[in-house]
Amino acid sequence: MEEIKKRLAEFRAAMKGAGIAAAIIPQTDAHLGEYIADHWQVRRWLSGFTGSAGTLVFTPSETLLWTDSRYFLQAAEQLERTGITLMKDGLPGTPSIAAYLADNLVKGSTVGLDGKLFATTEIAELRAKLEKHGLNLNTHFDPIDTLWTDRPELPSAAVFIHEEKFAGRSAADKIRDTLAQVREQGAEAMFVSGLDEIAWVLNIRSSDVKRTPVATAFLYLSPKGSTLFIKEEKVSREVRDYLGAIGVGVRPYDAALPVLNALPDSTTVLVEAPRTSQAVIDALGARAVFGASPIIALKAVKNRVQIDGVRRAMEHDGAALVHALMEIERRMAAGNTLTELDIEEILTRHRSAQPYYFDDSFDTIAGYGPHGAIVHYSATPESASTLKPEGLLLIDSGAQYLWGTTDITRTIALGTPTPEEKRDFTLVMKGHIALATAIFPEGTRGGQLDALARQFLWQEGLSYLHGTGHGVGHFLSVHEGPQSIRLNDVPYALQPGMLTSNEPGLYRAGVHGIRCENLVLTVPAFTTEFGNFYRFETMTLCPFDLSLFDTAMMTPREIEWVNGYHAEVARRVSPLLEESARQWLAEKTRPLRSEK
Amino acid sequence: MEEIKKRLAEFRAAMKGAGIAAAIIPQTDAHLGEYIADHWQVRRWLSGFTGSAGTLVFTPSETLLWTDSRYFLQAAEQLERTGITLMKDGLPGTPSIAAYLADNLVKGSTVGLDGKLFATTEIAELRAKLEKHGLNLNTHFDPIDTLWTDRPELPSAAVFIHEEKFAGRSAADKIRDTLAQVREQGAEAMFVSGLDEIAWVLNIRSSDVKRTPVATAFLYLSPKGSTLFIKEEKVSREVRDYLGAIGVGVRPYDAALPVLNALPDSTTVLVEAPRTSQAVIDALGARAVFGASPIIALKAVKNRVQIDGVRRAMEHDGAALVHALMEIERRMAAGNTLTELDIEEILTRHRSAQPYYFDDSFDTIAGYGPHGAIVHYSATPESASTLKPEGLLLIDSGAQYLWGTTDITRTIALGTPTPEEKRDFTLVMKGHIALATAIFPEGTRGGQLDALARQFLWQEGLSYLHGTGHGVGHFLSVHEGPQSIRLNDVPYALQPGMLTSNEPGLYRAGVHGIRCENLVLTVPAFTTEFGNFYRFETMTLCPFDLSLFDTAMMTPREIEWVNGYHAEVARRVSPLLEESARQWLAEKTRPLRSEK
Repeated sequence: MEEIKKRLAEFRAAMKGAGIAAAIIPQTDAHLGEYIADHWQVRRWLSGFTGSAGTLVFTPSETLLWTDSRYFLQAAEQLERTGITLMKDGLPGTPSIAAYLADNLVKGSTVGLDGKLFATTEIAELRAKLEKHGLNLNTHFDPIDTLWTDRPELPSAAVFIHEEKFAGRSAADKIRDTLAQVREQGAEAMFVSGLDEIAWVLNIRSSDVKRTPVATAFLYLSPKGSTLFIKEEKVSREVRDYLGAIGVGVRPYDAALPVLNALPDSTTVLVEAPRTSQAVIDALGARAVFGASPIIALKAVKNRVQIDGVRRAMEHDGAALVHALMEIERRMAAGNTLTELDIEEILTRHRSAQPYYFDDSFDTIAGYGPHGAIVHYSATPESASTLKPEGLLLIDSGAQYLWGTTDITRTIALGTPTPEEKRDFTLVMKGHIALATAIFPEGTRGGQLDALARQFLWQEGLSYLHGTGHGVGHFLSVHEGPQSIRLNDVPYALQPGMLTSNEPGLYRAGVHGIRCENLVLTVPAFTTEFGNFYRFETMTLCPFDLSLFDTAMMTPREIEWVNGYHAEVARRVSPLLEESARQWLAEKTRPLRSEK
Repeated sequence: MEEIKKRLAEFRAAMKGAGIAAAIIPQTDAHLGEYIADHWQVRRWLSGFTGSAGTLVFTPSETLLWTDSRYFLQAAEQLERTGITLMKDGLPGTPSIAAYLADNLVKGSTVGLDGKLFATTEIAELRAKLEKHGLNLNTHFDPIDTLWTDRPELPSAAVFIHEEKFAGRSAADKIRDTLAQVREQGAEAMFVSGLDEIAWVLNIRSSDVKRTPVATAFLYLSPKGSTLFIKEEKVSREVRDYLGAIGVGVRPYDAALPVLNALPDSTTVLVEAPRTSQAVIDALGARAVFGASPIIALKAVKNRVQIDGVRRAMEHDGAALVHALMEIERRMAAGNTLTELDIEEILTRHRSAQPYYFDDSFDTIAGYGPHGAIVHYSATPESASTLKPEGLLLIDSGAQYLWGTTDITRTIALGTPTPEEKRDFTLVMKGHIALATAIFPEGTRGGQLDALARQFLWQEGLSYLHGTGHGVGHFLSVHEGPQSIRLNDVPYALQPGMLTSNEPGLYRAGVHGIRCENLVLTVPAFTTEFGNFYRFETMTLCPFDLSLFDTAMMTPREIEWVNGYHAEVARRVSPLLEESARQWLAEKTRPLRSEK
């Protein structure tokens, strides 16, 4: 705590020195990413809050952290005694950062931030709001390098090629597709800041960012020759040759902005404003053509090779989960002491034994009892609960395999579940099933289907605030766009080939958390005189806890879905198991029977 | 047809004279309304197409009409042999008007339109798109007054006061509420173009527009004194005194723009850009403050007096419908010849006998058999089908009562329904019931609930393209915003007091149309630790055709809903009926029994 307070005080001194009244520290990097290397973990270093989302704000009298509902409980715990006030983003009473600054600063004050870490669209919006209230914005306030004396270097892990046998399409083809769409948008070249976009289009990967196999780089794509801006030590002779063969030269990471600055005035460069920092836009000047990154849409639709890979990855991920769940059950039954941290270890151990395993796809969330209600809980040696033969254990985990990324949540009863636990679980599952079995016309956006997953909870006055479904990358970010199934509207239709999560939940603070998550692939259902209709194919293969279903609350069709799903799990995963595990799985996938 | 062709040719000659290569004729008035007086029915006069939505476009080689799915069949019929090409708006293959012009005009061409009939936002968007393709925009092309020699005058019906016993709140209070919100948006005054906004805030009505009791006027609201710009002959001494007492002066309609032009430079005037024409914005210049009209949001939430009025209106509307449906049944049984036009006459006759009846709220849609599949069908003496004792009759109708506006659709079987008719009807009703029984948290938008009404149709590869629900005015427009339940997202939450339609449908071209529409009021459901939850109270009172339900497709809860609704209809409407009608209603509201 004292260390955090010291950092905050030093930051305030730097503000004072620069004539800054208020400062904003976002959780992102120069690539505006969600998954960022340690070098960019400024907000975590300053505040001690480890969540993956949140913004730290300094005013003359207060330090505040805005974060969303996933992290309300975790942030409250981690911010205790730091003097930082938690601002619960998304609740009706919580002002936006801009509104808060407007209300709490004297006219003429200056708000400082580092323009490299904010999209040009964010800067424009913020500036407009601040100026309306007589406040100034300084986008060059970046004292961190000086304050953070042991700041980690930019990462330098080796780049490697994601082979076409996994990616399904060559980088040359992807560059051609992308540049064709760049031309359609009226530009000649494109500048890419997004690390997952770069990894996808070039079929390269690295280990710069924990859990997300990307390389820290910028990419300039042009029919006249492309350039990857990257720490050159990361690029082996082999990778350099590979890149050269597809027309991509390699230059130092720091050369990106100077090279943009030096482009001929006539060059037109497509950038997607919300994914591009103010610094890049400043370097491009009038050469910038604002549009949508074609890569985002291309990357979201998985090809046949990727889909087949995901199917195989899911079978092996399912086998790892069966072994892990068996081990947990056996050790609990034997009276061994198990903590939430042991759950993480068990899962990673079984997954890492699977073919093509590379890393986990995010830090495992193993939340027992009340910890399950902390949506993105991450156990620490201090916080980790010891499991008892009662209550619910929520396990959200996944892995990066060369042939696909997985993300699954299961909620299991460690003892005989109570009627309340079964009721809560079954309400969540009814929503999960409603979404899993939805059929919808071409053009439907995820936001239109979101209520299908929530309707049964809403009927009982229950809800969850996180999204129901996010896109999932292919051996890439476990969260990717553009599609999304959530409360707010995201203007992208669900298209065949998109991989999305289906993860309704229910969180009773201080009691338990429930989430049931599978990944689903959008596939064609049928075509009628009313057009094309799509449905979801559930890709994840792992049993749900049969003891938690209250079949009296379920329709025959819902029970039938569970039984059909479990039969598929057994059919696909059993061949990868030893006899004892196969028997265990057969028992865990036995048919539910209607009580009616 | 020859008359239409002559008008089109004369319009083309005017284009040529003005150096206009392409022209756009919208379906609206200087108030950007949906319901417009005959004076403004330019597109109808030019094209012969009578639908309430559609835009006529002239290019050098073609005349085209863009309209939406409600009018695809009607427009195809009405445009036959006019040489006008139908462009089906909203279908994937249909370009926008701007895109079409960009693709079909030579660079340097000028597109002409009348800036008085386009929102400033529309002009800005169109201009940007056209200029990108080297095309010019002339916003002062208005040859209609010259060409349309017998053009109807601006309407001059008398203005009357909508008494507070119906409106529930005085105009003085409404003006005060509005101006308070205008101040919050940083403006001093407000300029209102919307006729329903003006009618609501001043508690005045008139008969300028068929089916919508508004007066053609502009309103300038200011704490320093307000002005209604209106044909002065419309305002009686009494109304002038009433307006004077609430601080509203009366000036001629044509004085609006000159008065805005002459305002002191320091005056700030709130306008909602999408509801304000380019001409008004030009007159306001730098005085314009762009924001949201507070009136739209205030008007949408009905007060206790209005809600009680709507309840009474629904009971009497229900009684009128019972009498009308009985008469149809009786005359059909007696072998009388009945046409679709007779249905309209019967409904209007019974409604007009009800207390506080003022007008129908829109032209009755009585579509028999294939005509039912024309979503906004309007029978003419030429088109009107004769009813036979078979098939489905769709009746969409409503009335303007002083205590509320109604809008209801029923689909009835004229003979013994076929299994296909029952299946289609039951799928629509299952969606209707799912929406009617939805419970949802505070903040939910209509677009989030839309799929609840469509899900059962989608499962069978069926769909409908119109919205599921629109807001309804109080003795005002039968369609009003801001809330909406539809495929596209409309960023307004459903709030207690909002009155909205619930009207899923299914249209099989050439076969039949089905729509089941009630109006529903958003009301509080309960408050839990997860927040406030809302539900719908169904306000419309009229039986659904029992013979069309396939109970084998329904859940016990769905059957229970129908039975509960019918019991409520009988309970509330019966006291207004004679004995024979009461017996008829009792029979038509008898409980459905599950076949399971």
